[in-house]
Amino acid sequence: MAKQSILFEKVPGFQVSTVSIGLKQSGNPDLGLIVADKPAAAAGVFTTNRVKAAPVTLSRRHLNACGGRVRAILVNAGNANACTGEQGMKDARECARLVAKQVGAYSREVLLCSTGIIGRKLDMKKMRAGIEAVAGIRSRPGTFARAIMTTDLVLKSAGVRVKGLGDVVVAGVCKGSGMIAPNMATMLGFILTDAAVSHDALQVALREVTADTFNRVTVDGDTSTNDAVLAMASGAAGGRGISGPGGKRYRLLVDALQDVCASLAEQIAADGEGATKLVRVHVTGARSQNDARRAARTIAESPLVKTAMFGNDPNWGRVLAALGRSKAFMRERKVRLALCGEVLFEHGLPRDFDAAKISKRMRAREIRLEVDLGLSGHETEVLTCDLSYDYVRINAEYHT
Amino acid sequence: MAKQSILFEKVPGFQVSTVSIGLKQSGNPDLGLIVADKPAAAAGVFTTNRVKAAPVTLSRRHLNACGGRVRAILVNAGNANACTGEQGMKDARECARLVAKQVGAYSREVLLCSTGIIGRKLDMKKMRAGIEAVAGIRSRPGTFARAIMTTDLVLKSAGVRVKGLGDVVVAGVCKGSGMIAPNMATMLGFILTDAAVSHDALQVALREVTADTFNRVTVDGDTSTNDAVLAMASGAAGGRGISGPGGKRYRLLVDALQDVCASLAEQIAADGEGATKLVRVHVTGARSQNDARRAARTIAESPLVKTAMFGNDPNWGRVLAALGRSKAFMRERKVRLALCGEVLFEHGLPRDFDAAKISKRMRAREIRLEVDLGLSGHETEVLTCDLSYDYVRINAEYHT
Repeated sequence: MAKQSILFEKVPGFQVSTVSIGLKQSGNPDLGLIVADKPAAAAGVFTTNRVKAAPVTLSRRHLNACGGRVRAILVNAGNANACTGEQGMKDARECARLVAKQVGAYSREVLLCSTGIIGRKLDMKKMRAGIEAVAGIRSRPGTFARAIMTTDLVLKSAGVRVKGLGDVVVAGVCKGSGMIAPNMATMLGFILTDAAVSHDALQVALREVTADTFNRVTVDGDTSTNDAVLAMASGAAGGRGISGPGGKRYRLLVDALQDVCASLAEQIAADGEGATKLVRVHVTGARSQNDARRAARTIAESPLVKTAMFGNDPNWGRVLAALGRSKAFMRERKVRLALCGEVLFEHGLPRDFDAAKISKRMRAREIRLEVDLGLSGHETEVLTCDLSYDYVRINAEYHT
Repeated sequence: MAKQSILFEKVPGFQVSTVSIGLKQSGNPDLGLIVADKPAAAAGVFTTNRVKAAPVTLSRRHLNACGGRVRAILVNAGNANACTGEQGMKDARECARLVAKQVGAYSREVLLCSTGIIGRKLDMKKMRAGIEAVAGIRSRPGTFARAIMTTDLVLKSAGVRVKGLGDVVVAGVCKGSGMIAPNMATMLGFILTDAAVSHDALQVALREVTADTFNRVTVDGDTSTNDAVLAMASGAAGGRGISGPGGKRYRLLVDALQDVCASLAEQIAADGEGATKLVRVHVTGARSQNDARRAARTIAESPLVKTAMFGNDPNWGRVLAALGRSKAFMRERKVRLALCGEVLFEHGLPRDFDAAKISKRMRAREIRLEVDLGLSGHETEVLTCDLSYDYVRINAEYHT
């Protein structure tokens, strides 16, 4: 199980630091830097939104150009450097160049992430001074996760120790609470390990794991222009390396990444904007994997289902109606719906359940909605949260 | 232009009546009956949700079996007779039989619609007494639209007079405020005309018109198990009939239906659950009709866009991000966004606009969001509303 006590800032082979440069109005830390002692294997998964921010475009290019051997990742919060045109790309390039100079690397060995307001130019005066300042220090544990927060209410981190790989650690942090949907929506995630892993193995592992974790979280179905999950492996733990995808040692790495990313993904769903509870939508018995995904996502994103979860209302009718429009193949008579462990609907009819009792169980911090299509063996789980007054408040008041 | 003063209850050739039978907890009228003096051409468009209520299944069968010549439509609110299994179908059949007996028709000449709570058996004792009572009276204008309301706040009706067809009228009423999305989502619509039209012509016309009106409204993307738009033409106006789709007289009919349905559709969007304003999302310049539709729907259903509209925030970034994930082909540099007549974003960059001024304009009852993809000539318009605290309140508190 992933723990918060295994610290991102303490992974051997990396230096992690943060400073405040005034991009956030609060004055909280808003610039973070991860530097590998020497070029480290790196991997990245990026937003699928057709509108991509400059740092996303640049990082994808650099990751290719450097052959997956990266020295540093610079992250800022408060400004997304998205929809900023040519100037945005120029600014991103300058940031990478400045970091490269500070740490003694090539520009292409530097990756960038930004999150915050869209459409406003980066304040390069602040960025220049910030990059110089942040490169010179080493920060206290917990500060990096805090520096990347925007509307997040809680700091999100997780780590595991993997004995089978010669006592290495895998530790991660992330940010994200609204605008989260499968495929990297306004979410940033960073994973560090001291295991010795090739770029290829790390990239395949990261893609496999994100599909199963971050990409199964949906808060509002909205995806963003900036989001990315980046991983770096320093190899500082020494020992035999993992050269490619496959084999027992590779599986151990994937399991460790899976533990860390699953924990981070749950922390995001639980911290969904205005969320009062985490909702697990588990679909089984689908005719295909695609059908399972469609059904689970449509239910998890239905505003009517999400408001019912907020109101502690065991409203199986809304779940069934969402399922019916999901494009997943289904037969009403075969469907079985259960909420908080109680079957509400099966054989085409609602069961005679005690609504007050289930409503009471729905007050928990985490609830489970099970939807069995009763057709075949495909299944999936999607994590979401309820839709509350606070979601509306946060998003009606968070101005551009 | 469609007017509310042309009354549904006064269309020649029909008798319209309503009663209260106690299906609604409020005690308001909840059962309505439309009876044609003699078999009338009828047409129907039904929900695409895979979960269909008994009255939907029955009405589709009857419409086929009677060759599109219908005597009566029975509508109840307060109970949807959906997810009620075999008993639900039995009850629906009995209702049709009882209506047929009262009006002297065959069962297959009777159509049914229900709206309200899902998964609860119809109270047949109330229905039997109600059918007997409603068949004997003729109600005051305005009562039918009221009898079919559920969470609606306002009565929705529209009508036009068509001189070109020998002074006929086309009048409609509808209900629906939440769970509305393209493809007949928890929405009932009824259109009556005294024009002489064949079933074929009416069916083709109704399908054409709903695609362009009701199916372009989306409140929350959720669709329902019960919804239907039904039309009947009594021919009581006499004169030359419209025998098939095509020709000048047919186009006049389509135009009249279009006027009425467009007005009804706008009334639904404006009365979206918790809505404070109607939002027109107009997409132009798309590479295909499908792309235009995808772009407009994704923007119109984005919770982040909808909360920004509620907060009077000209947040073009959320619109662009929704567009980017819509699967419509786009190039960021070609996109032009305008809100309330003011261009906010073009040539890949936000314009330097006066946010306070636009925010003020956004306080209107109706606002327009224009998205030009700048690629080709396809366009569409989708109607939606904002997402407010009241949407959450209504849907968290409206229990099963």
